[in-house]
Amino acid sequence: MEYRIEKDTMGEVKVPADKLWGAQTERSRNNFKIGAPGSMPLEIVYGFAVLKKAAAFTNCELGGLPIEKRDLIAQVCDEILEGKHDDQFPLVIWQTGSGTQSNMNVNEVIANRAHQLAGKKIGEGDKTLQPNDDVNKSQSSNDTFPTGMHIAGYKKVVEVTIPGVRKLRDTLKAKSEKFKKVVKIGRTHLMDATPLTLGQEFSGYVSQLDHGLKALEATLDHLSQLALGGTAVGTGLNTPKGYSKRVAEYMAKFTGHPFRTADNKFEALAAHDAIVETHGALKQLAVSLNKIANDIRLLASGPRSGIGEITIPANEPGSSIMPGKVNPTQCEAITMVCAQVMGNDVAISVGGMQGHYELNVFKPVMAANLLQSAQLIGDACVSFAEHCASGIEPNQKRITELLNNSLMLVTALNTKIGYYKAAEIANTAHENGTTLKEEAVNLGYVTAQEFDEWVRPEDMV
Amino acid sequence: MEYRIEKDTMGEVKVPADKLWGAQTERSRNNFKIGAPGSMPLEIVYGFAVLKKAAAFTNCELGGLPIEKRDLIAQVCDEILEGKHDDQFPLVIWQTGSGTQSNMNVNEVIANRAHQLAGKKIGEGDKTLQPNDDVNKSQSSNDTFPTGMHIAGYKKVVEVTIPGVRKLRDTLKAKSEKFKKVVKIGRTHLMDATPLTLGQEFSGYVSQLDHGLKALEATLDHLSQLALGGTAVGTGLNTPKGYSKRVAEYMAKFTGHPFRTADNKFEALAAHDAIVETHGALKQLAVSLNKIANDIRLLASGPRSGIGEITIPANEPGSSIMPGKVNPTQCEAITMVCAQVMGNDVAISVGGMQGHYELNVFKPVMAANLLQSAQLIGDACVSFAEHCASGIEPNQKRITELLNNSLMLVTALNTKIGYYKAAEIANTAHENGTTLKEEAVNLGYVTAQEFDEWVRPEDMV
Amino acid sequence: MEYRIEKDTMGEVKVPADKLWGAQTERSRNNFKIGAPGSMPLEIVYGFAVLKKAAAFTNCELGGLPIEKRDLIAQVCDEILEGKHDDQFPLVIWQTGSGTQSNMNVNEVIANRAHQLAGKKIGEGDKTLQPNDDVNKSQSSNDTFPTGMHIAGYKKVVEVTIPGVRKLRDTLKAKSEKFKKVVKIGRTHLMDATPLTLGQEFSGYVSQLDHGLKALEATLDHLSQLALGGTAVGTGLNTPKGYSKRVAEYMAKFTGHPFRTADNKFEALAAHDAIVETHGALKQLAVSLNKIANDIRLLASGPRSGIGEITIPANEPGSSIMPGKVNPTQCEAITMVCAQVMGNDVAISVGGMQGHYELNVFKPVMAANLLQSAQLIGDACVSFAEHCASGIEPNQKRITELLNNSLMLVTALNTKIGYYKAAEIANTAHENGTTLKEEAVNLGYVTAQEFDEWVRPEDMV
Amino acid sequence: MEYRIEKDTMGEVKVPADKLWGAQTERSRNNFKIGAPGSMPLEIVYGFAVLKKAAAFTNCELGGLPIEKRDLIAQVCDEILEGKHDDQFPLVIWQTGSGTQSNMNVNEVIANRAHQLAGKKIGEGDKTLQPNDDVNKSQSSNDTFPTGMHIAGYKKVVEVTIPGVRKLRDTLKAKSEKFKKVVKIGRTHLMDATPLTLGQEFSGYVSQLDHGLKALEATLDHLSQLALGGTAVGTGLNTPKGYSKRVAEYMAKFTGHPFRTADNKFEALAAHDAIVETHGALKQLAVSLNKIANDIRLLASGPRSGIGEITIPANEPGSSIMPGKVNPTQCEAITMVCAQVMGNDVAISVGGMQGHYELNVFKPVMAANLLQSAQLIGDACVSFAEHCASGIEPNQKRITELLNNSLMLVTALNTKIGYYKAAEIANTAHENGTTLKEEAVNLGYVTAQEFDEWVRPEDMV
Repeated sequence: MEYRIEKDTMGEVKVPADKLWGAQTERSRNNFKIGAPGSMPLEIVYGFAVLKKAAAFTNCELGGLPIEKRDLIAQVCDEILEGKHDDQFPLVIWQTGSGTQSNMNVNEVIANRAHQLAGKKIGEGDKTLQPNDDVNKSQSSNDTFPTGMHIAGYKKVVEVTIPGVRKLRDTLKAKSEKFKKVVKIGRTHLMDATPLTLGQEFSGYVSQLDHGLKALEATLDHLSQLALGGTAVGTGLNTPKGYSKRVAEYMAKFTGHPFRTADNKFEALAAHDAIVETHGALKQLAVSLNKIANDIRLLASGPRSGIGEITIPANEPGSSIMPGKVNPTQCEAITMVCAQVMGNDVAISVGGMQGHYELNVFKPVMAANLLQSAQLIGDACVSFAEHCASGIEPNQKRITELLNNSLMLVTALNTKIGYYKAAEIANTAHENGTTLKEEAVNLGYVTAQEFDEWVRPEDMV
Repeated sequence: MEYRIEKDTMGEVKVPADKLWGAQTERSRNNFKIGAPGSMPLEIVYGFAVLKKAAAFTNCELGGLPIEKRDLIAQVCDEILEGKHDDQFPLVIWQTGSGTQSNMNVNEVIANRAHQLAGKKIGEGDKTLQPNDDVNKSQSSNDTFPTGMHIAGYKKVVEVTIPGVRKLRDTLKAKSEKFKKVVKIGRTHLMDATPLTLGQEFSGYVSQLDHGLKALEATLDHLSQLALGGTAVGTGLNTPKGYSKRVAEYMAKFTGHPFRTADNKFEALAAHDAIVETHGALKQLAVSLNKIANDIRLLASGPRSGIGEITIPANEPGSSIMPGKVNPTQCEAITMVCAQVMGNDVAISVGGMQGHYELNVFKPVMAANLLQSAQLIGDACVSFAEHCASGIEPNQKRITELLNNSLMLVTALNTKIGYYKAAEIANTAHENGTTLKEEAVNLGYVTAQEFDEWVRPEDMV
Repeated sequence: MEYRIEKDTMGEVKVPADKLWGAQTERSRNNFKIGAPGSMPLEIVYGFAVLKKAAAFTNCELGGLPIEKRDLIAQVCDEILEGKHDDQFPLVIWQTGSGTQSNMNVNEVIANRAHQLAGKKIGEGDKTLQPNDDVNKSQSSNDTFPTGMHIAGYKKVVEVTIPGVRKLRDTLKAKSEKFKKVVKIGRTHLMDATPLTLGQEFSGYVSQLDHGLKALEATLDHLSQLALGGTAVGTGLNTPKGYSKRVAEYMAKFTGHPFRTADNKFEALAAHDAIVETHGALKQLAVSLNKIANDIRLLASGPRSGIGEITIPANEPGSSIMPGKVNPTQCEAITMVCAQVMGNDVAISVGGMQGHYELNVFKPVMAANLLQSAQLIGDACVSFAEHCASGIEPNQKRITELLNNSLMLVTALNTKIGYYKAAEIANTAHENGTTLKEEAVNLGYVTAQEFDEWVRPEDMV
Repeated sequence: MEYRIEKDTMGEVKVPADKLWGAQTERSRNNFKIGAPGSMPLEIVYGFAVLKKAAAFTNCELGGLPIEKRDLIAQVCDEILEGKHDDQFPLVIWQTGSGTQSNMNVNEVIANRAHQLAGKKIGEGDKTLQPNDDVNKSQSSNDTFPTGMHIAGYKKVVEVTIPGVRKLRDTLKAKSEKFKKVVKIGRTHLMDATPLTLGQEFSGYVSQLDHGLKALEATLDHLSQLALGGTAVGTGLNTPKGYSKRVAEYMAKFTGHPFRTADNKFEALAAHDAIVETHGALKQLAVSLNKIANDIRLLASGPRSGIGEITIPANEPGSSIMPGKVNPTQCEAITMVCAQVMGNDVAISVGGMQGHYELNVFKPVMAANLLQSAQLIGDACVSFAEHCASGIEPNQKRITELLNNSLMLVTALNTKIGYYKAAEIANTAHENGTTLKEEAVNLGYVTAQEFDEWVRPEDMV
């Protein structure tokens, strides 16, 4: 491989000649061979591209950055956002906990690419842009990385998670309405209980997701607050007057999202409770989705020796050995996502609780886990909606059969003959393997006519 | 011990003669010898007392319960709420997951105590009240237990957690203002960084708690929704018309809190995402408090061989072997609370994700963990505020010494001579063990006068 | 209340006159009003009693402690171990993270009680024993507390957890053997699959618990290592020669357990990986038990509209509203325990990871969580074994019915006619609602005779 | 793009013409668009290659598979293991929870590649090998996937994790020996305590890792047990006699690792406690590593305003804004890994606890988390050893200065003058800002000569 020499304040480094990155990126590549290369999420790089461009505009406006430099920076940022340089960001999550090296990776790529755009060859001639003095002007890793991760996280939640969950919510809502007259047995403790409609059962799922969405949306204000302008320790050292507010306006403008400057920059660098907060809501959704998907696979279990009250789409052959088997695979995919999100929540909390003084240095791991959870939940909800929920149908024959068997219909008699006599009827029918009606009449507590009038599943829902 | 005979639908049970509870409580006592007796939190019993009274009033109003029965029930509930029967609730968390046995414990105690109040002897004569048909009228364990746990949880959060956190927040806020002119070295990555004021540092803590309180308060609406009226599976079977809304009004009235009937009763029985949601915010606070308390003990470390920038109150002899030692014990207590809350969050999520069909049967464990976390955070914040935070004082001598030593003051030169020359100055001073000023002048980048003018910590905050 | 004056190195403190504790205990009571009083587990106090007695014997033997002092200390320790002073330990978990205050609580109680035993009145005359110089001789909180928690944890695991799990394991093993000829449908993905015996199904549970017990036992060596002799920072300062080894021998002798002195005292004070390690195995057991208990309630679900392949004992009326309902309450209790243990594991890990330098100061929270999990798992297994597992019976009629329905019996044809034709048979029968045999013959792939010969559930297990 | 038609039991599917996979892989690709494509770890694919080859050999030996088919299968498996087909496995973790689709992906690739090797064109002519009947012969996804994940996990732990941890352990051990005479102040509760040597401090770290390695190794036996031979539900349906044992021998032979057939196949399919168990030990290592790395960054903090007792290598410029800053970046990377592993442990446990009946369907998420943790810990330990631990040096000047300042040296006087007088000396020196010696003599408790003789840090370690 061919190399060129790049320099930083520690000296010279050999960098692959065809790469846009510089000395500090290369140092990080060599010093952190932990897990697969390039694990730092590209979404964060894109967040950086937004903020570098915004900083350039603000520095030009308030801090004396020449307009040509501003435009060069902006041009490269736009290229990055178009995905043209995805292979120039080889660093891993498991680097410095401030993400400094990824900040420098972006600074170096912008500077070197700008050099090219200025018609020069990388490594030759005076640098068109200095990575630190120009690209990173009025910035520190300590405020850029949290800014990048807030931008990335906010966008992911708003553009992927929320639409995905809402799609599933709407699918279940439509089913709930469609099934509102399907009377079926209820089950508590997994045991036969009094009836409800399948629509009511599904309305509970919808309600869970509604609450989850509301909880998630409530966290967005904190996440929309950006650290940029705090620089090294939150004081805003080396930024021009008015910078924080203005640069946030640019970031809002460039993304179309309501970003604003953080109320308190010291918190914004030293703690990442906004990440903890948003992920807490994702974890709540995971808890809900696990319940929903698990219920659906239980209801669909069978086809002959399970519950079998609903059918779900048969999307793939289910077994490599059992011919003709079909499985609730979408339920399985989404519950695995839930397990992962439960774990990610702990990873994020453990990172969040260990900040020291002016800086939390678990930034990359917190950001990566947030992005993964937000993506997985959004994607899994869409997949589940399209390939499972939308195809759910009641198995009316089975539903009716199970409903009519249930001893818990006896509950309707509580208000007529009291709990204790009703229990006697149910217990006797259970022991004798008979019907409620038979025993109710046998025991002399009701007439057959009364029974038929009082014990009507369709009136019990 | 003397016993009397109590009966339920399964038959006779011997119950200690001096106890108010009945057959089902005794069955549970015998069948669930898991951990210490009586672990079911009393707060939940009190929640039950509120709801049983509210149900009695509503049943009287809408469902034909005689006024004398209403008043007897209400009278016992009031006694329970006064703490007069605390020893009548011997059951454990680790019972049926619906909390049915604790519901019956309350029903039985109310019925038997009402019998006494009616001037009769327990076990003799016709029952004054039937535990199921009267006390539990228009109710099921499946809607009462979640109602009881929401009442208990809401009250704990509003009456203990929020005031406790707010007290600490206000204490830290006052310190932040008091310390606003104390310029000190900042630290990032635990390494010397640019300066800030001690007041700024503390303002970050305040901001964390402000965000945490806001997040916690945002969860209260969900928690204020009560399941009562859903009965067995959410349909409200066996309740009179208008019951749900009315009974919630009574519960609001009796507690002074804005409780209301749950939007969706199926969710309210089958899932406890409201508990997950509220505890998620408690966990966020734990993450914040861990950072804050850890910072404070690091800043106070020493007294001679640590950081020592602040002093905290010396409350106890710190060591049984090292004479004269004083330790940051309040920091330790609160960070242990944080560890517990982190764990409780997982316990709650694991419980919340495993509901089946119409009922989640992890109710007691979820409620107990919520109540413990809410209590511990509230108490620990008060303790920390009173015995530690309120007594924090800056150690001005030490602060000044460490500030002036710092090589990172060189950052002020970035905008004058550029990052790279500034780095050269810092590196040279570090290698030679000299001052920045010496090397800045030696290297010829600035004059002594310029240095003094440009590098002023008090201008860098 | 009456008070007496006690003193420590910080000055005077008023202590309730009838209590044996002294100044430092009282300071802690007042400074840590967090959660319920007395939450520090008594098991740890008893662990202290063992070690104080062992230290007294060793100090007498090697360090010049007079024999009368040794015997006084030993006498009080024996009284503590008999439970005579349980109300003298009012401190909470949420105190100093080294447990210093509980160490001093024990020292003070021993000193004051010894004063009584010497025929004097507490607070009058020269102290018979000095809490620090005599009772705490050759000790520090930093080595006593971890010693106390290892003794307590080890005993709990060996005396409660392991016998409890083993009892359940043996109960399931007996069932597995009893059910070895009960051929039933298997289920994978909750869907009908090829058959196995109920005994085979239960053998999987037994295997899980065997592996869990083996994993738990493998952690005991680490837990059996005691920190005593490390004193303040692990160096053993102020201990006589040979002390560590000898004092461990006494602790082993007094308890009958194979305790030994820790290989490395610096680790034993600064980290509590032994607690993490043992609790990791408890968590593994929780994972196993959750699977087992969940399976059992699914298999027992019904009685008429669930799976219903087994019956479990009906221990309590299951519902306050649904007469005659019986629920899998033991399954619910134990799965709630599993949820708690999952959470406790995180609490312990979070505590374990945050030690600083020579001391981990999350000792009480780590110990309390270990003890709770060990107790709950042991108790819950006994309860589950006695009240559920031992009464499990197959519902042969239902098992046969579900087995014969299953389309997955077709798998037996794979080796005869190939997977693809077998799939065609199953799919056709599923679509037509017919039997495998009908379609197999219809499709011309096998004769009726061949089908009967090849597709025999009892040969497929 | 060009496509060809592939078929499975559900019908026809269009597959990209240049790919080796078949119908079922393509169905899964389309049905599970969750997260990044190809997230299923390649290590598991390689595990499959081992087991498919072993199955072919065993089927040939015991089950009538023609030798030409055996050799074709083996040849493709070898190609897969050489990494020649890495791009043929496009599926994600978030698929069916049995991993059936990845099993079929491997079956399809082997069958189609064998067709090529047999000189034919994919999609034309009779299939050389049937994916189900030949490649998957005597197998089910239900036993192959757990086999593949055990092979992958075992190899990762033995080949990456253990060597990595051991390298760090050995590096720290060498430092511990080198530093055995460096007497320094100890710190407990972050506060000044009695002295120890830097070597002793490091010996605690070594002991932690020794215990962690021992714990990890103790889990390997369970992980070495392979499910293959259990087929669909654990009974081994459709396998020839002797198959389980023989196929395990082949897998052991092909890998050089001591794999053996699982003691109980029902457990091996229905539960993945072996994964839970092994990851529990990885989590314990994460707890240890977090403590160690955190200590090292605290000890190295400064350079001028922190503790500064040790220096660590300066590997990269530490700040994009603060010139000359150097940070403990390796400590940050490894503690982020620890946070992730803590989270992964919960993900795995949550998956492990939710098996149903004969199958746990959280296999892919459990395997992926195990592999990630095992890789990250191994890699991070190597990185930390090479780029940080190996370069640690004591800062003798600073160590001596801090040691001599410490008031806790007074502890040496306990055995001479008692704890209480010693405390008086320390407290007085603290208040007056004087030395222990001055106050000890002033108070008249010791002579200057006695002080010098008794208070010698080098004798206190």
